[in-house]
Amino acid sequence: MSDALPREEPTSAGIKDVAALAGVSIATVSNALNHRERVAAPTLGRIDRAIGMLGYIPNGAARSLAAGRTRSFGLILSDLGNSLFVDIARGAERAADERGLSVVLANSDGKLEREDRYVELFAETRVRGVLLTLNDASHFRAIVGRHAHGQPLVMLNFHDDSGRYCTASIDNEAGGHLATTHLLETGRRRIVFVGGPDTLQPVADRRRGFRRALASAALDPVDEIAPTWVNRADGWQVGQALADRVLGGDIDGIVAASDLLAAGIVQALSERSIRVPEALGVIGYDNNQAAWDAPIPISTVSQPGEELGFVGSQLLIDEVEEPDHEHRAIRLAPSLIARRSTER
Amino acid sequence: MSDALPREEPTSAGIKDVAALAGVSIATVSNALNHRERVAAPTLGRIDRAIGMLGYIPNGAARSLAAGRTRSFGLILSDLGNSLFVDIARGAERAADERGLSVVLANSDGKLEREDRYVELFAETRVRGVLLTLNDASHFRAIVGRHAHGQPLVMLNFHDDSGRYCTASIDNEAGGHLATTHLLETGRRRIVFVGGPDTLQPVADRRRGFRRALASAALDPVDEIAPTWVNRADGWQVGQALADRVLGGDIDGIVAASDLLAAGIVQALSERSIRVPEALGVIGYDNNQAAWDAPIPISTVSQPGEELGFVGSQLLIDEVEEPDHEHRAIRLAPSLIARRSTER
Repeated sequence: MSDALPREEPTSAGIKDVAALAGVSIATVSNALNHRERVAAPTLGRIDRAIGMLGYIPNGAARSLAAGRTRSFGLILSDLGNSLFVDIARGAERAADERGLSVVLANSDGKLEREDRYVELFAETRVRGVLLTLNDASHFRAIVGRHAHGQPLVMLNFHDDSGRYCTASIDNEAGGHLATTHLLETGRRRIVFVGGPDTLQPVADRRRGFRRALASAALDPVDEIAPTWVNRADGWQVGQALADRVLGGDIDGIVAASDLLAAGIVQALSERSIRVPEALGVIGYDNNQAAWDAPIPISTVSQPGEELGFVGSQLLIDEVEEPDHEHRAIRLAPSLIARRSTER
Repeated sequence: MSDALPREEPTSAGIKDVAALAGVSIATVSNALNHRERVAAPTLGRIDRAIGMLGYIPNGAARSLAAGRTRSFGLILSDLGNSLFVDIARGAERAADERGLSVVLANSDGKLEREDRYVELFAETRVRGVLLTLNDASHFRAIVGRHAHGQPLVMLNFHDDSGRYCTASIDNEAGGHLATTHLLETGRRRIVFVGGPDTLQPVADRRRGFRRALASAALDPVDEIAPTWVNRADGWQVGQALADRVLGGDIDGIVAASDLLAAGIVQALSERSIRVPEALGVIGYDNNQAAWDAPIPISTVSQPGEELGFVGSQLLIDEVEEPDHEHRAIRLAPSLIARRSTER
């Protein structure tokens, strides 16, 4: 191991040297390290440059141990491979940067065992609080039942109206309604919903919005199909299964609960020479790369993922810092993006 | 705030325990922490290994405090939005799962300030070690100069032959050679390399492989273009700039240093009605979604990202657990995926 360590001593610049070089008081440097929001941007810039030039190591451990906490919070993501969660992470990082905090991440793959494990791990690693993206209401109940030790915990991409936690979510029922109304407005009438399982709160909510939009138009769903999961391969199987009914004129529109599902469906239909949007309209959900970068760009419902990460982080920071914090449930609005797959 | 702290006491290894385990005096441990040049290398090695095994934090402020380690290691990723890094995370999680460990992640965006900050933060949060994905050799030098406190640190996606750190990387020179040879084998002779900046080690290595392949065929590069960065928009600008030369017959092949660059180039050429692969062959690098899900699927060099995360994590676990650990540099081989964009 010793060979791995550089021979040079780290420079021994102290906080005094930083203050002298930046032309500010030691108290201002201390503020720059601990309460960045209290220091004007140009001053912060001078101090940060001085720190860089001197190779000063702000003694993070000393600061955090004084407070018992590192200057960070944890963010547990359901699916690193889904760009929605990357957007959420970017929004959280932006909120953290504004307060001189860092974000540490974990990937749960939507599995309860991992959600549980990372909530616990983040408590041990002395972060100031945890943002947890959740899909499944049963996981929510299990986790809040077990982790009752007062670690500030904000639910992201999940709504709960009990008032026991802050939650920030995107209104999925409104999104399902938007998608379905768009298909109706482009003249489709024989519409199928594809998405499952309903234990995923976003899927159940989107399905509810779908039903409500059809009911407003005095129509019934032609069918509702719940694949095992919401990925491209699942959509491909659904597309295979539905192809004959599309060819027979039984179906002229599909609302898919994710863009990956929609992309898989379009791919399977195209293998049966069924043309989208001529033969039917298909709309997805998420506005991820699978939708905009497809051979037939897919209409979708865009989720403000970065804003979700940002406001969720603000809720958490407020909970950590404000003695009078009250739990809030913020719900953001999705928006429609019309592309080739639903043109008429 | 104390409510948020876990109930269990962390283990409380102190300097005495380190001295006892290393078989040296407390004064020698103190020297190892504060005046490394006064301690012989083999002794330093024993002390550092003892520190690692006991989870002792060799940090002035923390020294007097209980210092246990959590069953986790940190992984700092250069770009959460690039599927290569998601694959690396999955491989690391698989290696961790096998040993009952967890992985906490951070996103550096390839910025030195953030790489630095997260290496430091992970030390404070008592992980057992850190995997750092790096692109830039100057960042490597800066980071190893500053973080000299014995935290096990493995470089990922970066090679360094000094033997001072374990590194796991993918052979980018071999990949650049593969891509260029494929264009040559499909009959292209007037080939341009697009990728930059050369401060990114993978880009510089791919360029070297490109030159070597052309030299083997007794050809010169038609041009080498270094866009500001390696994203789709950068490629789109390059495609715009090269369109006239393609139309004039000056260029019949492009080796791009990333799939996003290649996708942007193909998109810009298509806007000028230049057909790929008929007018020229284009090959990218990374095998990410931008390549396989494009209107014209793009040939590429596939990187074994999950394997990289897996073997890198094994190196780190070995360094943490094995007293006789010796630093190793593992280099994995990329592979060619031929698609429509280079057909002949």
